[in-house]
This record gives sequence, structure tokens and C-alpha cells, in this order.
Amino acid sequence: MSINTFGHLFRVTTWGESHGPALGATVDGCPPGVPVDEAMLQHWLDKRKPGQNKFTTQRREPDQVKILSGVFEGQTTGTPIQLMIENTDQRSKDYGDIVEKFRPGHADITYWQKYGIRDYRGGGRSSARETAARVAAGGIARAALNALVPGIAITGYMTQVGPHKIDRARVDMDQIEQNPFWTPDATAADEWAAYLDELRKSGNSVGAVIEVIAQGVPAGIGAPVYGKLDTDLAAAMMSINAVKGVEIGDGMASAELTGVENADEISMGPNGPEYSSNHAGGILGGISTGQDVVVRFAVKPTSSILTTRKTITKSGEETEIVTKGRHDPCVGIRAVPVGEAMMACVVLDHVLLHRGQVGENRGKIG
Amino acid sequence: MSINTFGHLFRVTTWGESHGPALGATVDGCPPGVPVDEAMLQHWLDKRKPGQNKFTTQRREPDQVKILSGVFEGQTTGTPIQLMIENTDQRSKDYGDIVEKFRPGHADITYWQKYGIRDYRGGGRSSARETAARVAAGGIARAALNALVPGIAITGYMTQVGPHKIDRARVDMDQIEQNPFWTPDATAADEWAAYLDELRKSGNSVGAVIEVIAQGVPAGIGAPVYGKLDTDLAAAMMSINAVKGVEIGDGMASAELTGVENADEISMGPNGPEYSSNHAGGILGGISTGQDVVVRFAVKPTSSILTTRKTITKSGEETEIVTKGRHDPCVGIRAVPVGEAMMACVVLDHVLLHRGQVGENRGKIG
Amino acid sequence: MSINTFGHLFRVTTWGESHGPALGATVDGCPPGVPVDEAMLQHWLDKRKPGQNKFTTQRREPDQVKILSGVFEGQTTGTPIQLMIENTDQRSKDYGDIVEKFRPGHADITYWQKYGIRDYRGGGRSSARETAARVAAGGIARAALNALVPGIAITGYMTQVGPHKIDRARVDMDQIEQNPFWTPDATAADEWAAYLDELRKSGNSVGAVIEVIAQGVPAGIGAPVYGKLDTDLAAAMMSINAVKGVEIGDGMASAELTGVENADEISMGPNGPEYSSNHAGGILGGISTGQDVVVRFAVKPTSSILTTRKTITKSGEETEIVTKGRHDPCVGIRAVPVGEAMMACVVLDHVLLHRGQVGENRGKIG
Amino acid sequence: MSINTFGHLFRVTTWGESHGPALGATVDGCPPGVPVDEAMLQHWLDKRKPGQNKFTTQRREPDQVKILSGVFEGQTTGTPIQLMIENTDQRSKDYGDIVEKFRPGHADITYWQKYGIRDYRGGGRSSARETAARVAAGGIARAALNALVPGIAITGYMTQVGPHKIDRARVDMDQIEQNPFWTPDATAADEWAAYLDELRKSGNSVGAVIEVIAQGVPAGIGAPVYGKLDTDLAAAMMSINAVKGVEIGDGMASAELTGVENADEISMGPNGPEYSSNHAGGILGGISTGQDVVVRFAVKPTSSILTTRKTITKSGEETEIVTKGRHDPCVGIRAVPVGEAMMACVVLDHVLLHRGQVGENRGKIG
Repeated sequence: MSINTFGHLFRVTTWGESHGPALGATVDGCPPGVPVDEAMLQHWLDKRKPGQNKFTTQRREPDQVKILSGVFEGQTTGTPIQLMIENTDQRSKDYGDIVEKFRPGHADITYWQKYGIRDYRGGGRSSARETAARVAAGGIARAALNALVPGIAITGYMTQVGPHKIDRARVDMDQIEQNPFWTPDATAADEWAAYLDELRKSGNSVGAVIEVIAQGVPAGIGAPVYGKLDTDLAAAMMSINAVKGVEIGDGMASAELTGVENADEISMGPNGPEYSSNHAGGILGGISTGQDVVVRFAVKPTSSILTTRKTITKSGEETEIVTKGRHDPCVGIRAVPVGEAMMACVVLDHVLLHRGQVGENRGKIG
Repeated sequence: MSINTFGHLFRVTTWGESHGPALGATVDGCPPGVPVDEAMLQHWLDKRKPGQNKFTTQRREPDQVKILSGVFEGQTTGTPIQLMIENTDQRSKDYGDIVEKFRPGHADITYWQKYGIRDYRGGGRSSARETAARVAAGGIARAALNALVPGIAITGYMTQVGPHKIDRARVDMDQIEQNPFWTPDATAADEWAAYLDELRKSGNSVGAVIEVIAQGVPAGIGAPVYGKLDTDLAAAMMSINAVKGVEIGDGMASAELTGVENADEISMGPNGPEYSSNHAGGILGGISTGQDVVVRFAVKPTSSILTTRKTITKSGEETEIVTKGRHDPCVGIRAVPVGEAMMACVVLDHVLLHRGQVGENRGKIG
Repeated sequence: MSINTFGHLFRVTTWGESHGPALGATVDGCPPGVPVDEAMLQHWLDKRKPGQNKFTTQRREPDQVKILSGVFEGQTTGTPIQLMIENTDQRSKDYGDIVEKFRPGHADITYWQKYGIRDYRGGGRSSARETAARVAAGGIARAALNALVPGIAITGYMTQVGPHKIDRARVDMDQIEQNPFWTPDATAADEWAAYLDELRKSGNSVGAVIEVIAQGVPAGIGAPVYGKLDTDLAAAMMSINAVKGVEIGDGMASAELTGVENADEISMGPNGPEYSSNHAGGILGGISTGQDVVVRFAVKPTSSILTTRKTITKSGEETEIVTKGRHDPCVGIRAVPVGEAMMACVVLDHVLLHRGQVGENRGKIG
Repeated sequence: MSINTFGHLFRVTTWGESHGPALGATVDGCPPGVPVDEAMLQHWLDKRKPGQNKFTTQRREPDQVKILSGVFEGQTTGTPIQLMIENTDQRSKDYGDIVEKFRPGHADITYWQKYGIRDYRGGGRSSARETAARVAAGGIARAALNALVPGIAITGYMTQVGPHKIDRARVDMDQIEQNPFWTPDATAADEWAAYLDELRKSGNSVGAVIEVIAQGVPAGIGAPVYGKLDTDLAAAMMSINAVKGVEIGDGMASAELTGVENADEISMGPNGPEYSSNHAGGILGGISTGQDVVVRFAVKPTSSILTTRKTITKSGEETEIVTKGRHDPCVGIRAVPVGEAMMACVVLDHVLLHRGQVGENRGKIG
């Protein structure tokens, strides 16, 4: 079982290699009657597209998405939607050196150990290019959510690059679209630009933290106990290339809280329960509370770097490697739209699951 | 879809409420011919059992597991294994106050908002008692792993209680069984005991961090890109009650590493590749490297505390609540065997998946 | 993967062996708020219960079902429902002869070839006793359907025993409860009684055909193209012990129809489309038309017979076997409530699926 | 949930509409290292291709398959294989009349009732063109089976057209490739040709029966009790357009057999158990016996006929319809390679499942 599908009712299967003819996503389970066109999806792909500034890989791909099925006269039909992105800039000569050598910190050694097949063309299936397909599928999910849950909004942004974190006091959500890091802290953006410039010149890379929030998710969405909303979000984010940690609400810092501190106290507002705080990240027992759903994940630094590292070859000889290809000094930047896409897919999936099993929100308060 | 099953080939469905007649796990997909008996499972359940010391809930449950099917003459038959644990200490009168009121930080408000059904008996399905079934199922997974992957070892331990972390320099794995916190740092154990005593007396609770490692997992196990080994571990751990963060290897701290630091350099040892470090936590591209698989998760403090918090009732009236039941000051302690059980289930599942799709480890090095 | 679960959203996992301590069904995904109690389920189990007349096995099992979870104060909670039936009449001494020998036409040789484990106690997991768990789960499905789709009715009956078919002109649905064969043709019932008496005395058995109809299924239910309503019904019925053929509507006889004959012509009635005939069995393109959903399946004769047959032993020696246990001359009789249960589960599952993906019936006519 | 995927470990998702830009199959879970190229797949597609003789639709599609991913240097990589077939002959003007009217016996009324979307272009997703994608995927399954199970052979052929059945005494498997009906009875082929000529001229169509056998399937393959080999075959065949009945071995005729007749007696041959007959169709208890696996299915006549039938419009007005498009007088002919493809997929899937759970055939006899 090679598991290239995620989702319970809204099911996305991505396919394609970094340097094959094309890649894409097969999206099954989208409700019928949702307005969708290629331009809507392209908007999100353009956000993720490489080569837009000096902080992302200089590979230039138009990443033009085509809808091959499942949409008729501008609406989804309820049948599978095939989204294809052709690969155009396949400069595979850049990868000559890694045909025999494994990059430390990269999946090419484990893919070899698992499959016994070495697709050395730019990482093959393990390349971050796979995430383009997720972003396209996420565009479908957003369109469906807009149709089903009016007022929902999903927003991702960077909160940390290497050791440099944003200052929550400086957060201004309107800043997110104003800088190449999609960060709500304009001052941090300037610092990061200088820091990454330096790093890139030295042939190094660095990790990052991305936060994604979903606003307007109704209370009662989620499926305990193994398809919890946070369980599925953790899986979705951890499945993104290079992600090593996932947090909901206060995340790892929850360990330091006492029960008194952690209890988000409840009062009664005009539209239902209100909470004094959101340590829970909008999820209790795997089910949404109606607050903002808050997820955070850490992306490790790219392993493809210009600094020499010790490694071995396929035949087991010890050697050294320098990766000369076009790579991102901070791959976390492009993970922002990917995290948003995964959030959209998971939330839509749970909205559909809830509707299927429960029918409508049953437990009224007040 | 109420998703109470996890696993792809080794599938565990847990069932049962905290104060119903029984709870248990339906385990499907265990290979045939694995030696199993009730005593083997009981060993792990006893580790998790409440009421063993003053740091865990004083509810006393024998948690005696019965095998109702799938085992014949001491061996698994390849058919579903039904594991049942009868509830005996159901003092539901303790919960009288929470029939109408919601506990801040607890799932009872979201279960109500989702299902419109209020099973006020000790949390019903959202109770941590559900994890007893996981531990029983994990016992089956361990038995199967022992049969299939000789030399594999899965060990969980606490690394942090509230703000107090272990000192990695003091770690001695032989200490784990010597203290009530299953921690490899004896000094930390003493500090935590004093800290939790204080906390318990003040009617408060606190969070914790647990680390689980799997040693002896062969290289090449894992299923990219949405059933990655780390993806499934993230989901498994996040599905445990009260978990708010999951990390693989360096986890959230990966964000602060540079590519040079993060690259676990590779050399050639007598039995295959060896690594200079394990920032990756034994997983690259979702596939095992052959190093220790390292997972860490944070457990938030119990919401059932003796301190008064503001809340509302089912009918929407604002009020206050104090939870008088028998609860754990640090629910993280009992999460140690649960984390181990989830690790065992996930690793077994991926061993079976690999065997199904790939047949045997195909990519030889050297 | 040992697949003991069926259903997409309404998921039933059966467990247990013929002569183990108990068997049952874990039912996940039932909507919350459905009125359920043990008596409701017992009604259907009593219909299937062995030993009720001389045409079914003389094994006497009370088949008393217990609800261990998922129901609180008379209503489903939306969490897993555990249904347990304890085995009481386990006369395994009857099976002494088959410990070493394989019964021709029975699964005990293939279970051995697959698993290398010989659970000789009455067929173990391959016994028709497994279907008791299905009937219990079907009781839950019926209750949920009654709550969600008012006016739905599911009815099974025998239409053929050996070479003797019912006469469709004599059909009177009120007769179904009046004879031991649940057949709507009273004359056929008399003939079958005489025929089976003879057969039983001669130590032989015979096959049968069962038809199950679902009335009141709304148009638009079904999920093309691999989870079609008829696809899932075919799987559900074929999964019943001893079933060798499944038909929808005209079934195999469709091969003999011309397109002109097969076209169920459509007119407009007061409540929507009406059809001149029902060759389609209420399903077009895998989706319900609103007509009666009609399924038929053939059950082969029991292989456990009192007539000597040639066979081999586990060690490969040629020998002969006579099965002396208590068995049904026509196992098809007890397949009637099982077929009904499977129909109820499949229809409920598709009602939930439709609600999840589509929300409500969208395409209005007229 | 719109279920366009089948298979447990070898998972095939088909996508695409009859008159959209393309259709195809996303194949996940194929073992790595299987030799595959486009020509191998094209062989099977050419067999199914329309317009090859006067008995199939005159629509002319080259049905050229492209492999977009998952194959590298002539071998499968273990990652998803995307198979795309572009639609070239999209003469949608032929379908003008059915934009508003429903064809009796066709899925266009139920798709409308389910989704509220009318893709009138040649049946959209419900068109038999979807089966081209199955045939392509089946080519991958055949290639993998050849690599994993040497000596396996899968063969489909027609056994009945309308009322005309083959004579089993005249069967000569070498005839299958010699006539347009893929039938092993040359005399029947001549009769059918004359019969269908007549039928086509009269603007009518007729049903058929197809039989598919798999030779060389090892004993022990199958997954009781809901993923039985016969259960999955029943589902696979019933999911093919226009199929109304599925039989294993003796199928519906099993109802007429006595236990004495039905018992395939067992003796010991040089290579293991041998059977005196094959009433069981090579499957007992859902697990293969090592004999030929025999499946049969009935295809109803095409509903798109040149004879006038009564129907209604989307707005509920009563009217009449004649379908003028290019259609098959006996759609069953082209179902032969589709049935073979489904058999290949199901058998491969169960070979992988068995290998995953059981590892190797464990129960030796003799």
C-alpha cells in the first residue's frame, strides 16, 4: 500500500514526480454544484509558485493547472476532478551528482532502501513539487467551503525563521500579503530578509514555523476518537515535506500550563458560548468549539545545500556531496500556501463527515 | 462517520464509555500464528492502571482484559481479536454536578454541540479510560512485532512535567522502571514528586511531555506521501486524549537549525549506513532510516480540577464549576504506556504495509 | 489485512468464532439520537435463531444480544455500539472427526491453506454463526433507517428451494410470517416441507434462492462508480456464507432481454417519476430510482452432510468423511434475516453517504 | 463520498467523462520494479476499443494511453501511476435530444436526481467510456501479477448473447481470439453474428453473459469475511456499467444442487490437493482453492436504442425518445476486456493483501 490519498469523504490523491511529464491531484467527493474554474485554482498556485523572489528556488515553472474532469459549465458535478500541472522546466542535468550519492537529511536514501528504485530526477516523488498538487486540490476545498460554510476564512503565515520569531504584539494581519514571507509582522519580515540573504550566500539553509488559522468553523465539527479534527490536522501537516512538528493551540507549551491556566473559561454570548482565551486552539476532544482553529508546524531546513557533507554512494562507498541544484534557502516560505491547502481540505472533509453522520448541528445551548 | 478505527492493515477499533458496562478493542489484521495470551496483555494494562500511586486518579479499576475471539490454543488465528475490559468501579454519583454544566477545557461541551447527547457519566466516550483499550491492542501489536521483527524494542518515558524538564546528561534508561513517572532521570523524578504533591494539594493539575522511541525498526518502512511513518505517528499520538503537540526527532526545534546542522551525515558501517546524529528522529521522507524512531508529544493538564472556573450550563446560563471527581494531577503519567501502544500499532502496521506492497526490503546499499 | 469490516460511513466489524466464548459486532458511524434497545435487536435475532424447527440446525443457542456501549438512556450516542452474543451451546465434541480431515465444499481447507491455523471448533470464523452478529448490526441499521427515512420497509423471503421455485402468481406477502421458510407462496411452503423432510432423512442438503426488497428508498441514493448501490449490495450478499450468485432486478436473465423490453418506460405521477416496469430492480447507474430495490442471491447447499465423501487429511492422506454435527438441511432458510440485515446496512450507509456529499436530494423533476 | 476508487492495497481511481478533455486512472499501490510501458497497456485498450467491427459503437477513438507518472526507466517506482487517455472524437451534437429528456433504462435520470447536474454529453461519467480507464489499470495489474505470480493467466469470453448460449461441448479456448465476440465456441459466434445483424437493423439491442477465469491463482488468497475474494469479485463486476448479475462457479444454479452433488471431492495430487469438480469456482469461504477462479456476469442491453420509448423531461412533461447516437447493439462484447481487467485488479490486490498479513502461504498439506 502506497498511500497517496488523504481524506475520508473529500479524498485527494496526488500523483507525479518532480521531473516527469506532469503531476496533479485526483479529487473525489467534492459536492456537486460548487462554482469552480481554473483561474480560481491558479490564484493559489501562483502564491506557491517558485522563482518569485530570491528567497525561493530559482526553478521557473508556470505551474499552470488544467481541469480535466469533474467540472461542467463552471460547476462541480459530484464526480472526480482531475487537476493536472505539466512540468516544463525539467533541467535534470543539475542532478547528475546525486544519481549515485545520497544527500544527508534527504529522503533519497530511504526511498532507495524501501523501493530499490532510484528516481534521481530532482527527488522524484519526494520532491516538494508534489505540494503544487495539494495547493490545487486545496483550491477546490476552499471553493466548496465557501459554498457550504459562508464566512469561513483560512489564513497561513510564517511566525519564525531560524531563531527569529515574530513579536505577537506587532501582528497586523493586513501585512501578510505585503512581504515575501507572508508574515503579519512587518519588522520581522525585514529582519528575515537580511538573515536569509546572508544564509543563502553562505550556501546554507534554515528551518521555519508556519501557523494556519481557520476562522468561522462552526462548533461541533470533528470525529472522535481517531478521526479527530486535530488528529487529521496533525497528519495533514506532518505529511508536508520537511515538517517535523505539529502543534494545536498552545501545542508543546501546554506541558507547562496548569489546569487553572489552561481552562478556557466559558461565558454566554449573543450567538452562543464565548471563551476567555483559546489555549485549546479551537478544538476540544477532537471537535471544534467555534473559536479559531489554530495549527502550527515546523519545517526543517532544506537538505540540498551548497556546503559539503559526508555521505555514501549506492554501492556503499564513503564520499562527500555538495548539492548544486536550484533550491530554497528557506523551504518554509512556500509551505505557507501548502499548509492553508491542507487546512481547507481537512475542514471541508469534517464538514461533510458531520453532515453525513449527524445531519445537522444537534446540540443547542441556551 | 464516527471514526473509531485506526491503522491501514493492522486495524484497531476501540469502543466503550467510561461508565458503561465494558470497553475494549476490536483488533483486525493481526498476522496468524503470533503467540498471545491474556497475561501478556495484562502486563501493559497494569502499567497504565489507575490508582497505583498518589499521582494518578484514585479510581480503582482492575482493568482485567479478556480475549473473546481471534486466539486459539495460544496463537492468533488471523481473524479479529476482541479484547474486553469490564468496568467495575462506576461511581457515577461523583459526576452529579456536570450533568448540566460544562467543564472549561473539557470535551463535554463539544460532544454536546456535535451529537446533542450528553453522556455525563465520567466523560463517556471522551474519557481517558478509552486508552485502556489502546494499551490492550498495543499488547497484541508488540507480540506481533516480536514475532516479525526480532530485536525491536519500544520504550516510552516522561521528559517534562510542567516547567521541569529532564537533564539529558543524567539519562539512564534503567531508571525508567524505578519511579512512578517512567522517567530515565532519577533526579527529575524526585523533583516532580515534590512538585506534583504541592499541585495536587492546591487542587490544580499540570501538563507533561512524553517521548517514545522504537529501536530496531528496519530501514525502508513507511508509506509516502500521506501514510508516512511520521504522518501516522503524528495522528496516533494526537489522537490520545489531551495531546496538543507532536514532534519527530528535533521537532519544533528544527525550525532553528541550519541545513548544515540538520544534515545527519552518513557513513558506511558493518551492517549498512550509519549516521553521525539523529535530528531526523529516524525518519526521512516518511520512511525509516534504521535509526531510533523518536516521537515526542505534549499532554495538556487535566481540565477536571478542584479550582473554581467560570462556565455555562446546557441551557446557556452562566455559572461556576468545581470538578470533585477522582482525577490525575498529571494525566501525562498514564499517557506513557498509551504512547508506547500507539507506537507499536503504527510500526506493526507499516511493517505489514511494506511487506504487502514491496515484499521485502529491496534497495541494498553496498 | 483481514477484512472484517463493511460499510463506508456506517461501519460494521463482526468478530468471534462459532465455539469461542462470544461473538458480536462493533458498529461505528450510527447517527446519534436513534432509539435503540436490546429487545429491538433480539426480535431479529430470534428470527434467525437456530433450532426453531426441524429444517434448521438443532444446535440450541439463545443468541441473546447485549449492548455494551454506544447507547445511553435508550438512544444511540453517535459513538461505537458494541453488540455481544455469548456462545452457550458449544458441543465441540461433535467435531472430533474434522480436526484432521477437510470437508469437501467447506472453507476449512482454504482457511488452513491461508493461515496455517486450524480452528476445528465448528468452523471457527467461517461458521454461519458469524451471521448472528450481522443480524444484530442490521437491527441497528433498521432503527436508524426508521428514524431517517420514514416509510422505508425491508423484507426478505425465499423464492426457491432446490429445483422448486415459487409461483409469482401465488405471491401473498402476508404469508411470509406464516411458514418456516419465510416465503410468500403458501403452496410452495408445503411442497418444500415435504421435499426437505425427505432430503434430511437421506443425509443430504440443498441450496436455495432468497430475495430481499427495500421499499421506500428515495431516488438519488448511491455512489458511482465503485460504491454503487448495486455494487455494495452485491458485495454484501456475496459475503454471506455459501452465497454463490447475486442478482439485481432481472439479474442474469437481463442477458436475454432486448433493449426495447428492458427499458422501464417513464411517466409522470403525482409524486414524481413512475415506471412501467422494474427490470432495473430500482437501480440505474448505481443510483436508486425510487422504485423497489430488488436483490436476489443463491445459497449453495451445506457441505456438512451425513453422506460419505472423499477427502484428504492435513497430512495429505486420502480418506473419507461424514459430518455428524447438527446442521441445516437448507442453510438458505436462515439466510433470509441475514439478507435483510445486509440490505438495511447498505441502504443506511448510502443514505448517510448521500447526505454527506450531496446534502439533500438536489435534482428536482417537474 | 463519491466512491471512484476500488481495491484495498492496489487502489485504482478512475476519473473523466465521456466527452470531457480526457479520462484516466490513478493507480496507487503497484509494487516497485514491475516492467511496464505504454505499449503493454495499449494492447488491452485496443482489445476494448470501439469501432472495430459492426457489432460495436461506430464512435472512433484511438484510446491512446499515456503514462504520466510512477514509471521510470521502464519500471514501476512504487509511487502512483497516472494513466491518461485523451478524448478526441467528441461529437456531442449527436446528443442534442437528451439534454432535456431521460432515456428509459439509462442512468441519466438518477444522476440528475442525485446531483442536480445534467452532464448530457454522452452520459458524462456514467458512460461506458469510463471502462477504458479500467482496462488501462488492468494492464498494470496484469504486469504486476506476471512479476509476482508466474504462470497466472486471466481470460474472458462471451458465453451468451440474448437467448443464445454457447455449447460447452464445443468450447475451444484457441477460438477466443478468432471472432469478434471473444467466444470459445466458433459455431455460436456465427449464430450471434447473424442474430445481432438483424437486431441492429431493427434499432434494438440485447444483453449478454461474460465469463472470466483466472488460472494459476495459488491456494490461500482471499480475506474473510467482508473482503472475500468472491465478495470483491462480485463488487468489481457489478460495478461495470449495465451489469445486473454476478456468479461464482455454479452461481445461481447452486440453489438446485444437493450437498452431495455440490461437494467437490478432494484427493491428493503431486502438487497438493486436487478436486473432482469445480462447483465452487475456485473459492471456498472467500479464499482461493488453487483451482480456476470462475466468475460470470450478465450485461443488460444498451438503453440507447433507435426504438421509440415513453419518457419524461427534466421539467416533468411526458414525451417520447429515440436515441440516435452511435451505440453498441450488444455492449456486452466490449465488457470482455473490462471483466478481465477487473479480475486482474482484484487478484493482484488479494495477492498483496495476503503477503501483507500472512507473509507467505503458511498451511502446508502433506
